Formats: sequence, structure tokens, C-alpha cells
Amino acid sequence: MGLGVVRSLVRNGFEVGARDILPRAEAAAVAAGATAFPTPAALAREHRVVVLLVVNAAQIEDVLFGESGAHAALMPGAIVIVSSTVAPAYIATLASRIGARGARLIDAPVSGGPRRAADGTITIMVSGEGEAIGECAAVFDAIAGRRFVVGARAGDAATFKVLNNQLAAVNLAAGAEALAIAVHAGLDPHLFAEVVGASSGASWMFADRMPRALAGDYAPLAATTLLQKDVGIAVDTAAALGCDAPLARAAREAFDAAVAAGYGAEDDASLLKYYANRIRQ
Amino acid sequence: MGLGVVRSLVRNGFEVGARDILPRAEAAAVAAGATAFPTPAALAREHRVVVLLVVNAAQIEDVLFGESGAHAALMPGAIVIVSSTVAPAYIATLASRIGARGARLIDAPVSGGPRRAADGTITIMVSGEGEAIGECAAVFDAIAGRRFVVGARAGDAATFKVLNNQLAAVNLAAGAEALAIAVHAGLDPHLFAEVVGASSGASWMFADRMPRALAGDYAPLAATTLLQKDVGIAVDTAAALGCDAPLARAAREAFDAAVAAGYGAEDDASLLKYYANRIRQ
Repeated sequence: MGLGVVRSLVRNGFEVGARDILPRAEAAAVAAGATAFPTPAALAREHRVVVLLVVNAAQIEDVLFGESGAHAALMPGAIVIVSSTVAPAYIATLASRIGARGARLIDAPVSGGPRRAADGTITIMVSGEGEAIGECAAVFDAIAGRRFVVGARAGDAATFKVLNNQLAAVNLAAGAEALAIAVHAGLDPHLFAEVVGASSGASWMFADRMPRALAGDYAPLAATTLLQKDVGIAVDTAAALGCDAPLARAAREAFDAAVAAGYGAEDDASLLKYYANRIRQ
Repeated sequence: MGLGVVRSLVRNGFEVGARDILPRAEAAAVAAGATAFPTPAALAREHRVVVLLVVNAAQIEDVLFGESGAHAALMPGAIVIVSSTVAPAYIATLASRIGARGARLIDAPVSGGPRRAADGTITIMVSGEGEAIGECAAVFDAIAGRRFVVGARAGDAATFKVLNNQLAAVNLAAGAEALAIAVHAGLDPHLFAEVVGASSGASWMFADRMPRALAGDYAPLAATTLLQKDVGIAVDTAAALGCDAPLARAAREAFDAAVAAGYGAEDDASLLKYYANRIRQ
């Protein structure tokens, strides 16, 4: 996702600095027109707006508060845009810690995957202080095809994203479950996928993942561990809110079991293999 | 659905007979251009193709094998098109019983709801003997916008339909679950529905049902008991095939609980109310 966002920002005339712990990823960002910085602190010292595109809260902690982290180097009035999918409660705490330094956090998770990130057509959900969001309008316009300002509280956008991904996880697990049963029943799985796409069982995740699964293409566009993490956050968030979420819980179990069965690093379309193998055994 | 199919057939020049145990429904069919018949037997005696649009296996038994049922009156070579969503194993048995009388069954469940039935744009899944399907091509063209011949065995189309509706049930229950949590978290539910529609959590059921639920419109376009029945058949079918279906099981529990809570006769969009009330208690 990070590389796609760099491309979109460069294409829109922004001067972009980049830092990635993976040398190959950082080199790709430089090839796309960004300037490399040796540490998050070095980058933060020269940029008013810092966008974090990392996987989870542990990586956010490292980038902001680790050795040579960005936090201590933030300019006065800087804006930190956090585009990871993390727990809403964590974002709320993070906003306070960043605010204590005179900087501002915008909670801005994205949806759409690496391809759409490169096109600048991802969907971005934004929440936080209105003035900061206004100052970053051009940044969001460059990154995203659609921007939804979903609330004034840091954490609101995280809740939107977590609930969206909860649905994505359920719809994907359910799709893999149904398709595996169709195969077991001796039906044509390609035809089944086509019929579902034209019927009431259709979902975005089914249409996106199942054709790839049927083609045996499990190259990780989105590794199974990612949505496993998100649906775990979703179940924990629901519990913290005092809400039961039985469908999300069932999806979390499916993702946990698929990762335990060895599909974690493959694309999450591999849930089809997980279900198919479960039936065979 | 029956009235919509009558309209589509009349519009396409078919001579249509109709029988409905609800006088109001039968009168509507007559107003749409059909001729009323006093019993299924009377109708079967004068038509080569008999289309059954009833809710469940008990109603099929009644229409075909009950007092003045159609079965004993079927013409030689008649074709019975069964468009109900019922268990695949039941359809297979029914094909034998109809075949024993020299008539033929086409397994032809439909998807799309009453509005699209009236427009002739529903999706129809068809399986059975190829010759019979060929003879009914014009009938299917009149009824459905899309026709998928999904297999040669009576029961294949039923399996397709049951699995599609399994997905519809899961996607709906998951959507209601997530939207209820969003409301509880103080988020704007209309905005949440819009964001999900533009993101990876999107599904056909979410887009169709949640806007009506948010508008408080629970007039039954599809009563909760219908999808409750279908997801129950789905779980039983999966079990009969030796497949576990944890997401479908979780959805069945949600539908059973919603019906137990009094939402059975309302539209299945009322799952949102069920989840919202669960949180409040």
C-alpha cells in the first residue's frame, strides 16, 4: 500500500520522503520519485505531514516511539496520518500522545488494496480534528478516489474500518465455505461463482477472491494473516463495546484455523483450500 | 413471486392458467391475464408445463399429491418446473416420483424477489434432463433475465440455490451485526452503510436490506421466516454432504433467534432490530 500511496502523491506534485525497513520497498519508493530518509526521525524533521502505512500497532509504536522514532522529531503543528487498521481504543490513546507534543493525529484507514492504492482510487475513511483534515485535503485527494469524513473523534474511522473488515472477513469465510461445499457436491465451481455473482449471495470479497482461488492463484495480494488480525481486532472491539458478534467470531475462528493450517503467508483466498481440505479429511 | 411470473408469461404471449389457495392472489393473477382453475388437478389436465411457485416441501406435496393434486392429472410427457427453494435430496426424490408417472421434473429455483419477477428479470438456476429444459426455453426466457443450466441432475440447481441463500443469510446477518455495533459506537449508520457499500465489506444483501432497515421500513418483501427456512436447509444439506459450515450455522442461529424474538413475519431486514435490541438488553 505504501508504494501505491507514494506513486499517487508524486503524480500529484508532492515532494515525498520515504522510509521503509525493507530495503527493496524503500528502493521502489525512490524509483517512484520519493527521497529516502534513513530514519523516521530524519523524515519527520523535514515534513509537516507524516503518513504511516504500517501493518499493526506494534509497528506504529516502533515508527513513532522506537529508536530514531518520528514522534520526538515532529515539527510543531505537524500532522500524523495513521492509515493502519488498528483497534479504535489504541487510536484514541495515540491521539493524546501525539497531541501532547503539539502535533495532530488524523485517523485515516484505507480500503482497496495495493492496486487501487497505486491508481489513487482507494477509499479512505477519515476522522479527527476538522482543521487538520482540511489542511490535508490535497493529500487525501491525491491518495484516494473516495474520502469519507466519518467522525470528529480519532478512533471513529478506525471503528468504521474495523467493522468494514469484519464484514469482509465474514463474507470471505462464508464464500469459501459455500464454494468448498459446491465442489464437494460435484457442482461446477466456476459456474457456481458466476451464479452467486448474479444472485443475492454476491459480495465484494467473493467476487474478488474466489476467481483467484479457483485459478489456483494464491500469491499474496493480501496475506491471510492481515484479515486474521483485523477480524481479531473486530471481535475484541465488539466485546469492549459490550456487543456480541457471533458471525465475526465464527469468521475469526476460520481465519485462525486457516493460519494454523499453514495458509498465513498466502493470499486470504486460500481460505478456499482450507475449507476444501477440511472436508477431505 | 407467482404473480410476477404470471405477468411475465402473459406479456410474452403464453396462455396461462393459475391456481392459488389465497383468493386475493388468484384474483390478482386473473387480473394479470391468467385463467383461474379450481384445483391443481384441473390446471394440470389442460397444461403441458406446470410451474410450482410455493414456499416449501410441504406445499409442494400438497399441490402435487394432496386432494385434487396435480400429479395424478399430469399429461403424458408433461413437465413440472419446481421453483421453490427446498432440500436437494427432496428434489431428487420428487424427480423419481414424477418420472414414475411419465412426466419430467425441472429443478428451477429463482433468485431476485417479487419486483424482478414481475419485470421478468429474475435469475433462474436450472437442472434436469436436457431435452425437457430445451422444450421450456421460451418459458424460461419469459420468466428470467438470466438462466444458468447448472447440472444434469435434478437437485443440482437446488444445491446452487441453497448455497446462494446460505451466503445471502450469512451476509445479511453479518451486516446487521456490524451495523448494530456501529450504531452502539455512536457512529452515523447511514454514512456507515454508504462507506461499506464503497469498500471491501460490500454485499448484495447489505446494500439491499440495510437502507430499508435504517429507514424503519420492515414491510415484508421477504419475510424473515423465508431465509430462516433456507439457511436451515443449507446447514442440513451441508451436514448430509459431510461438510461443516460454521458461518452458516452462526447465521442460522441468528435467524432462529430473530424469529423467536418475534420478527418472523417482518422483512428480514428486521435482523438489524434484532441485533440492536440484543445490545440494549
